[in-house]
Amino acid sequence: MKRKLRMGMVGGGIGAFIGAVHRMAATLDGQIELVCGAFSSDPERSQKSGAALYLDPDRVYGNYAEMIEREKALPEGKRMDFISIVTPNHMHFGPAHLALSHGFHVVCDKPLCLNMEEALRLEKEVTESGLLFALTHNYTGYPMVKQAREMIANGELGKIRRVVVEYPQGWLSTKLEDEDQKQASWRTDPNRSGIAGAMGDIGTHAENLAEYITGLRIKELCADLHAHVDGRLLDDDGSVLLRFANGARGLLYASQISAGEENNLRIRVYGEYGGIEWSQQDPNDLIVRWLDKPMQIMRTGSAGLYEVAAVNTRIPAGHPEGYLEAFANIYRNFAVCLQARLEGKEPEPVYQDFPSVQDGVRGMKFIEKVVASSNSDDHKWLAY
Amino acid sequence: MKRKLRMGMVGGGIGAFIGAVHRMAATLDGQIELVCGAFSSDPERSQKSGAALYLDPDRVYGNYAEMIEREKALPEGKRMDFISIVTPNHMHFGPAHLALSHGFHVVCDKPLCLNMEEALRLEKEVTESGLLFALTHNYTGYPMVKQAREMIANGELGKIRRVVVEYPQGWLSTKLEDEDQKQASWRTDPNRSGIAGAMGDIGTHAENLAEYITGLRIKELCADLHAHVDGRLLDDDGSVLLRFANGARGLLYASQISAGEENNLRIRVYGEYGGIEWSQQDPNDLIVRWLDKPMQIMRTGSAGLYEVAAVNTRIPAGHPEGYLEAFANIYRNFAVCLQARLEGKEPEPVYQDFPSVQDGVRGMKFIEKVVASSNSDDHKWLAY
Amino acid sequence: MKRKLRMGMVGGGIGAFIGAVHRMAATLDGQIELVCGAFSSDPERSQKSGAALYLDPDRVYGNYAEMIEREKALPEGKRMDFISIVTPNHMHFGPAHLALSHGFHVVCDKPLCLNMEEALRLEKEVTESGLLFALTHNYTGYPMVKQAREMIANGELGKIRRVVVEYPQGWLSTKLEDEDQKQASWRTDPNRSGIAGAMGDIGTHAENLAEYITGLRIKELCADLHAHVDGRLLDDDGSVLLRFANGARGLLYASQISAGEENNLRIRVYGEYGGIEWSQQDPNDLIVRWLDKPMQIMRTGSAGLYEVAAVNTRIPAGHPEGYLEAFANIYRNFAVCLQARLEGKEPEPVYQDFPSVQDGVRGMKFIEKVVASSNSDDHKWLAY
Amino acid sequence: MKRKLRMGMVGGGIGAFIGAVHRMAATLDGQIELVCGAFSSDPERSQKSGAALYLDPDRVYGNYAEMIEREKALPEGKRMDFISIVTPNHMHFGPAHLALSHGFHVVCDKPLCLNMEEALRLEKEVTESGLLFALTHNYTGYPMVKQAREMIANGELGKIRRVVVEYPQGWLSTKLEDEDQKQASWRTDPNRSGIAGAMGDIGTHAENLAEYITGLRIKELCADLHAHVDGRLLDDDGSVLLRFANGARGLLYASQISAGEENNLRIRVYGEYGGIEWSQQDPNDLIVRWLDKPMQIMRTGSAGLYEVAAVNTRIPAGHPEGYLEAFANIYRNFAVCLQARLEGKEPEPVYQDFPSVQDGVRGMKFIEKVVASSNSDDHKWLAY
Repeated sequence: MKRKLRMGMVGGGIGAFIGAVHRMAATLDGQIELVCGAFSSDPERSQKSGAALYLDPDRVYGNYAEMIEREKALPEGKRMDFISIVTPNHMHFGPAHLALSHGFHVVCDKPLCLNMEEALRLEKEVTESGLLFALTHNYTGYPMVKQAREMIANGELGKIRRVVVEYPQGWLSTKLEDEDQKQASWRTDPNRSGIAGAMGDIGTHAENLAEYITGLRIKELCADLHAHVDGRLLDDDGSVLLRFANGARGLLYASQISAGEENNLRIRVYGEYGGIEWSQQDPNDLIVRWLDKPMQIMRTGSAGLYEVAAVNTRIPAGHPEGYLEAFANIYRNFAVCLQARLEGKEPEPVYQDFPSVQDGVRGMKFIEKVVASSNSDDHKWLAY
Repeated sequence: MKRKLRMGMVGGGIGAFIGAVHRMAATLDGQIELVCGAFSSDPERSQKSGAALYLDPDRVYGNYAEMIEREKALPEGKRMDFISIVTPNHMHFGPAHLALSHGFHVVCDKPLCLNMEEALRLEKEVTESGLLFALTHNYTGYPMVKQAREMIANGELGKIRRVVVEYPQGWLSTKLEDEDQKQASWRTDPNRSGIAGAMGDIGTHAENLAEYITGLRIKELCADLHAHVDGRLLDDDGSVLLRFANGARGLLYASQISAGEENNLRIRVYGEYGGIEWSQQDPNDLIVRWLDKPMQIMRTGSAGLYEVAAVNTRIPAGHPEGYLEAFANIYRNFAVCLQARLEGKEPEPVYQDFPSVQDGVRGMKFIEKVVASSNSDDHKWLAY
Repeated sequence: MKRKLRMGMVGGGIGAFIGAVHRMAATLDGQIELVCGAFSSDPERSQKSGAALYLDPDRVYGNYAEMIEREKALPEGKRMDFISIVTPNHMHFGPAHLALSHGFHVVCDKPLCLNMEEALRLEKEVTESGLLFALTHNYTGYPMVKQAREMIANGELGKIRRVVVEYPQGWLSTKLEDEDQKQASWRTDPNRSGIAGAMGDIGTHAENLAEYITGLRIKELCADLHAHVDGRLLDDDGSVLLRFANGARGLLYASQISAGEENNLRIRVYGEYGGIEWSQQDPNDLIVRWLDKPMQIMRTGSAGLYEVAAVNTRIPAGHPEGYLEAFANIYRNFAVCLQARLEGKEPEPVYQDFPSVQDGVRGMKFIEKVVASSNSDDHKWLAY
Repeated sequence: MKRKLRMGMVGGGIGAFIGAVHRMAATLDGQIELVCGAFSSDPERSQKSGAALYLDPDRVYGNYAEMIEREKALPEGKRMDFISIVTPNHMHFGPAHLALSHGFHVVCDKPLCLNMEEALRLEKEVTESGLLFALTHNYTGYPMVKQAREMIANGELGKIRRVVVEYPQGWLSTKLEDEDQKQASWRTDPNRSGIAGAMGDIGTHAENLAEYITGLRIKELCADLHAHVDGRLLDDDGSVLLRFANGARGLLYASQISAGEENNLRIRVYGEYGGIEWSQQDPNDLIVRWLDKPMQIMRTGSAGLYEVAAVNTRIPAGHPEGYLEAFANIYRNFAVCLQARLEGKEPEPVYQDFPSVQDGVRGMKFIEKVVASSNSDDHKWLAY
């Protein structure tokens, strides 16, 4: 008999923004249940979170190693199927590595890990283990992003010439890391965040979205990163010139000091015959401009979209879906593939659609190259 | 120990739009679990739905009466706490009545029931039983609706003078009820829908939203309803002039033949000093216009909003929340109140915020009056 | 040899909002020149205005009668061709009547005049004289309004079922007429404005726009007007239910106490296959929603529009045109027709497109009926 | 006695887009009249244009040199006061130089001229002659651009950190220059346009707007230009990284192959406390986002704006002003200054606000540097 998939969580105790997001996203469609967790490195706090989540205290653990080993020891019909890693960047590799080596599938927050070395090891381990691995570049979960990707893949815009992707936020306009704000604190700390700040945290989302929608690879880049807030250790703002493998030109702008901006990820892609525009803060509109006919606005849930858009939509047009629903699409697609795996079937291609460990390696490479380009004296274009 | 609340569902088998919505909304916050259901009057189909929802087959029932009686017989630690009724209008009263008489709390879709007589009986039964009853006028669940209500209650707009509420949809522009479309079929059938079509289905949402946001009561109305599609038995379009108790004037427009419209519920309220505008298709914006200072756009999740807006928001500004999240707020607030009840506590006032059986009676009265006004020869204003 | 047309102005001295608008609109395309004026009933102030406008002092007059008679006496090669009347409502009939009787063509601001009796006399005089008469219902001058009208006339939306036209302003939210504000003062004075306030001033624009775009006639109406500001003598807010000759239903809302609104004229028209939406504050977008294909936004100046839209557009798409350009289209079309008349030719049909004295009579009838309906005890529907 | 200022035009015969724009802009406010012109190098076509503009055939000339010399010979009370140059770039220097040397003031379209050498000569000649010179970077004429500039100058946003300015068009997506399209033909021809294509034509508008609004100087830049259309001789698309003198970072994107885009100039500027956004296609909105209070939309013509915004606005809020009105503000401010000059007065500072020959030199430098940066092998940052 079909059963719900069982998820264990690393990090994401009560009060952590992204932990709650992962839980809501994972369980929205009723296919996944949270069965265990190592929510904090402080065992008492971990138990508190577990209780608030109505978990069996026996399955609330003091750290991820304990969780992975003790769950492994449980009977197959009870133990977790996969872990979801929602810790800061420096705590991605450890649990992912251990889970894979114990035969657990993995969902992991982005960016993939702390540095390129870890990234390449993880990629190898995923490949060799044959286990499923999903990276939560959640913005590719939106149905209108998928519609855009499909339109481009089908040549509706002709050859792509120009990409503009931007991700301004403003919440780090002041030195929040000095005010004991947890989110700010690890994101601006090289030991926990890696060599990039805004470019790692949100620039990678922009990079991933650009490659996902266009189906093109960035080939070269030239970057200018900066920390505008005095004393900040990592970039909080930057621009990158892009060249894609097919000759398209692009630019990427990511910033956490664009004061007043919320979470304004936005992409425009222009081809020979027209262009698309999608904005995360109005995610149910896909603006399509044409060279020689009136502009269209395609809407989530409406008629005439590609199947992949419909499959990733839950409710009728005009009933707005948002961030959680898009995030849930990553989990839902992962769950369908995992369910199929458990049943020894091949999942339908339309569900084999979630960011992979390879996407994660691309992201780490992006971080490495933008930082190197920005630090170089002469701003040579760097191959990517 | 705190535990999840247990929900039984009446109607809403797999494939039914609103059933899935209620399930996602109810479980989003992890406080409620679906434990049983009577999903269809066809027992086999009910079981199929139960299986798809991973339910214990023993707790999937062939009809609501069976469910209520057999759940009642289960031990307290196992049986459902409340039922959620997601059937067509003519099937609201029966299960609600039976659930109340067996001591179960009730969540019920809108409009309250089929006619005024049923409505008044239900109101009486809820009052006398002291049980909790929530009506899913889900649009009042949006945080920016609550922000608007609070601004008005605090006099920020001054005395309210003018209300414009409109709810255009276009999906009934053709005679869909002849094409075996389930949603269209019962909504255009007087035996299942009641005396009103569009005015009952969505006009009541508009009426409820107007009274919720303004805190004012409609006192008189004058209506013009019409069925534009040949052979349709109930109104598919109508306008209503409104007068409110405080002297404010208003108008309400609800239509299901406004071709091309999706679900465009929108309200504007003007007072002496300014006005607000909120649109369900852009639910995270609250436009506030002032007589003598620049227009503002207040945004879900941003700083400076009233507590009630923050309490009904899950994620930071710029991470769009939508229809399901607003719907989930109705369930969440209901669940907090029910949880408090189970623990013998008084819930905090900010959570005592979900549509009541009295709101349901207002809605039935609205239906009765607009139909009567529209049918009268001389269109007298009718008291409301 | 072709020459510029010569305009004389009644009213509109320096400082008067609408006088400057008429002058800019009239001269924008270089076909019309202002040659004389009776700008004020105070001869000194009239001269001051004339001087500021670089007019020959000999052709600045103390009142309209003097202007019409003395211009008549000038040689044909010098005297004005037409007058433009930009005075308050009670001062329309006099100069229009005198101009017509002296053989001058007329452009007149709206509404046509003070009451129905004057309106019918003017209509008769225009018809009998054979002179040109344009009424400046300027909002029909926008190219995207004309595009919408043409789409509907060509059946692109199918049979029209529903019209929603609204015109909220907020500038009369306080008792401005007590503060020596000239615009407010005459508009709220029955002796200068007529029997209606907001409904006459802007409601007639809405009514005219609805009939222009749809090509349909309003057949019946039922109105509720109100003065929200204490002591105000005329309505400052009102709603009207409409029935059109073809069976379409509509509503019209006009208000000058919708605090915070600027000049938000907006119309939506729905037919069997789709609907259009146009908003005066975003006049270069025509939103077209379809029952079964993606929504479009047609844009001023872009490819694929009807000829009439292109003819009324001056600059390429993306170079926004506004209120003055639309207003100028009324004058331009009038000028082309007048020029043709002077040359003994028939103007091309696409230019025979400006509001007529008959439109003015419709407007006066609208005022009469909405006031009567609103004042009637039982709100009978009144034929229109 | 005050009189209208007399303008002579070089280029801009009937049918030329920008010629008509300049005429409408120059005459909108009734302070300037067109008295003569050299509309084409073909005398017959020049006469045709003159006739269509109702000019005295004696003052329609076969070339600019003839015009300047013969006008100079006319009595002071008759001859033109200034010339307006609306020819392609390679034809700016000649007439500007000759006019200045004959004592005529100059209005000139942008970019200033063909190359840096011409630019510096013109700057010198303007300075030495003491004559007035206005460059029609018309986008700085919009009232909300001026409001933004004033807000920033007054420190409302704090120290500026980030600038994003973009100017996508799509009209050169195909090889229009091969189809005898006049606008495309000269703009893609290095002999008539100069060393840059899109960057010269519209990139300079973006650069000028960024420096105007922020009051900051670009200090360094790094560019990537490209011609996407096969066989095109000049760039049709490009991105530029910017560094400003105060440490702010920026990016500029200008493109004429962004298929489907009209004329979408848009700028965002972020400081320590908030950011502004202005878009030329919605020019009456100035979006202001704040770090810690709700977003505002400031609107042309509304209360509470800086004086400079009001002075550059003609009609009340909600009556949209557009491209022509903004363009007219350049002429109006130039005219007020010239009028003052003629009367021997100092113009009020608020009117001393139009782009200068120095702005033109900045633009030529921008062109020179972006082309050099893009062509350099190692993409060194170039000082600017």
